Amino acid sequence: MTRSSESDAERPYVVWHAMTVSRAMRERHLGQRGCVIWFTGLSGCGKSTVANALEAALYARGATTFLMDGDNIRHGLCAGPDRLTDEHGTSFAERFGLGFAAMDREENIRRIGEVAILFASAGLITVAAFVSPYRRDRARIRQQVVAAGRDGDFIEVFMDTPLEICEQRDPKGLYRKARAGEIAHFTGISDPYEAPLAAEIRLDGRLRKTPEEFAAEIMHYLELQRVFSTAGS
Amino acid sequence: MTRSSESDAERPYVVWHAMTVSRAMRERHLGQRGCVIWFTGLSGCGKSTVANALEAALYARGATTFLMDGDNIRHGLCAGPDRLTDEHGTSFAERFGLGFAAMDREENIRRIGEVAILFASAGLITVAAFVSPYRRDRARIRQQVVAAGRDGDFIEVFMDTPLEICEQRDPKGLYRKARAGEIAHFTGISDPYEAPLAAEIRLDGRLRKTPEEFAAEIMHYLELQRVFSTAGS
Repeated sequence: MTRSSESDAERPYVVWHAMTVSRAMRERHLGQRGCVIWFTGLSGCGKSTVANALEAALYARGATTFLMDGDNIRHGLCAGPDRLTDEHGTSFAERFGLGFAAMDREENIRRIGEVAILFASAGLITVAAFVSPYRRDRARIRQQVVAAGRDGDFIEVFMDTPLEICEQRDPKGLYRKARAGEIAHFTGISDPYEAPLAAEIRLDGRLRKTPEEFAAEIMHYLELQRVFSTAGS
Repeated sequence: MTRSSESDAERPYVVWHAMTVSRAMRERHLGQRGCVIWFTGLSGCGKSTVANALEAALYARGATTFLMDGDNIRHGLCAGPDRLTDEHGTSFAERFGLGFAAMDREENIRRIGEVAILFASAGLITVAAFVSPYRRDRARIRQQVVAAGRDGDFIEVFMDTPLEICEQRDPKGLYRKARAGEIAHFTGISDPYEAPLAAEIRLDGRLRKTPEEFAAEIMHYLELQRVFSTAGS
């Protein structure tokens, strides 16, 4: 507790100063560097599956991680108008709820990026898996992650699976709907996907590899980049 | 890698299934229960200072934590229109940037609550310090945190410092400005503060305790609630 001596008599309740736990302290505690591993790729390209396998590999390595994907984001932080109406009313839901218009998508990625920055600053290896089709959006997040931390904190993973294969898999039936015109602005069909020009890691989705094999490629990269400060378990 | 045997010939690229790291696994790894410790109280009541001291005590205990407060939220996830205009344009900034109108505050607290849920689900002891003046907003976050986890995951800490003391301290000069009419909707002056009726922890800000002493009260509560599954270091 710090007291300013001269005004203490008149101001019995002083302004305190408390120690802050720094990012460096958090990272030392966890034995790793906080960072963001950002998967981008078409719907159905396999990015969520590989991201899950990566998190499992990181967990086995003793790392502390978090995975952000549509499942835990779209229902909460980036909920659509429908989900917000009951609790918050119509005008609130219309303003803040996120649909699929260009501006909504931009805000969606912005919020996700900001949360990824918070997780990285908490020292976590933060895995994010989103289509994120636009170079500008990804570049912006990269720039912000680095500005909030260090060079190398943003690791872009391009899950490079050709559209034909994604559409053939169509795990959620979305391509079929998009081709039938039931979904507008669908990336790869009616909206563009801008492939990364210089991703840190490119995974070739045409290869018959398991998710674990793809994850191992990323783990190798992370070891080389000294993301872990402690020996593997 | 799971393959559906009958269609394997026609569908060489199959839908993968990868193991997911569960919340229970994250918590076992960290030796603690993820939870949200939510500080509420007037501006200048000392909540940020005590939250910082609590995080330092948790760090010393070997816990893995994150602190959310105005500093790391207002500039990013909940940025005001001004900060968004350059990057995203005026209409974007007007829609998604958060000011101090009632709806903006509601969305501010909603986003913060959703992020706190993500951190708790990552297994972190998540400390949040925001004025959060409305019972309804706090009750909503409590309900959502519990729904996403378990009873007891939301721990409300009421930093109960009388307005007179907060105003006397006025560490940021905000009360002076609010009294002069330069800040509208200022909690405690021109806007209400709804004190918690049944906070898990009430800290009496009239007592001449240090932040560390207040933090120790909370640590005692957390030990009783078995937030830590490992012995203290």
